[in-house]
Amino acid sequence: MKKFTPEYFMSLAIKEAQKAAFKDEVPIGCVIVKDNKVISRGHNNRENKKDVTSHAEMEAIRKANKKLNNWRLIDCDIYITLEPCLMCMGALYQSHINTIYYGASDPKGGAVHSSIEFSKINNLNHYPNIIGGILEEECSQIIKNYFKNKRTKLIKIL
Amino acid sequence: MKKFTPEYFMSLAIKEAQKAAFKDEVPIGCVIVKDNKVISRGHNNRENKKDVTSHAEMEAIRKANKKLNNWRLIDCDIYITLEPCLMCMGALYQSHINTIYYGASDPKGGAVHSSIEFSKINNLNHYPNIIGGILEEECSQIIKNYFKNKRTKLIKIL
Repeated sequence: MKKFTPEYFMSLAIKEAQKAAFKDEVPIGCVIVKDNKVISRGHNNRENKKDVTSHAEMEAIRKANKKLNNWRLIDCDIYITLEPCLMCMGALYQSHINTIYYGASDPKGGAVHSSIEFSKINNLNHYPNIIGGILEEECSQIIKNYFKNKRTKLIKIL
Repeated sequence: MKKFTPEYFMSLAIKEAQKAAFKDEVPIGCVIVKDNKVISRGHNNRENKKDVTSHAEMEAIRKANKKLNNWRLIDCDIYITLEPCLMCMGALYQSHINTIYYGASDPKGGAVHSSIEFSKINNLNHYPNIIGGILEEECSQIIKNYFKNKRTKLIKIL
């Protein structure tokens, strides 16, 4: 069976981010993969669900837990368009996920190397592999476009 | 109206932790309070729900979001029996919660001052007040008893 590349799975995560943009949510998306297959997808849905925990990653993690009937995501990888925040990074390491691939960095709230250096935290029970910069430009652009459109709309209203 | 003390609300969080113990979950509980009233309760339910995100705090946060029809928990406080982990601390600061009261520290995974120093993270959009050590001994004891019972049962089996 053909082994898909990280860029292929990241392109699916970008499609998820576009779903968020259509709902007027900050466009962040992700997919969780096991044995070369997507087992769950998620996009940021905080405003629509009025649930602070409904980040893309949390949505996909919960679905994957349900699908595998297990709170551990052993031998799974996640592809996220943006560096995960403290909440999502916490859920991901606790799920024992194998590898976190992400696209763009998040200087304001990223918990891999931006707001904290995850790898420098001592005594956690699991440290996933982490690889950033996958389709970074596309992942970054979708967020920039979203905020640019928001500003344009706001200027028209004012 | 009588203003309840932090110890009173923590005693309700301990009752939640006891619910977790009855289900053979690590006994951690919490309540979220607004205007001197409990608006939601949560206990650790990870094993039963098979959902890595089902920590006490996350359960209570989602219920409070639903009740207030808002992902922000403005003017709310949370009382938790244990220092929150990275995931829960991430959800709590993002919810703009006012004050986090907790009982015992968690040297292995606590994200207030144990595994990370939350207050030293730069550039987050909200820093809740944090007060630890409320009914610390009782909060700590319920967890110690749980693991002691687990070990005793295991020895009997072996």
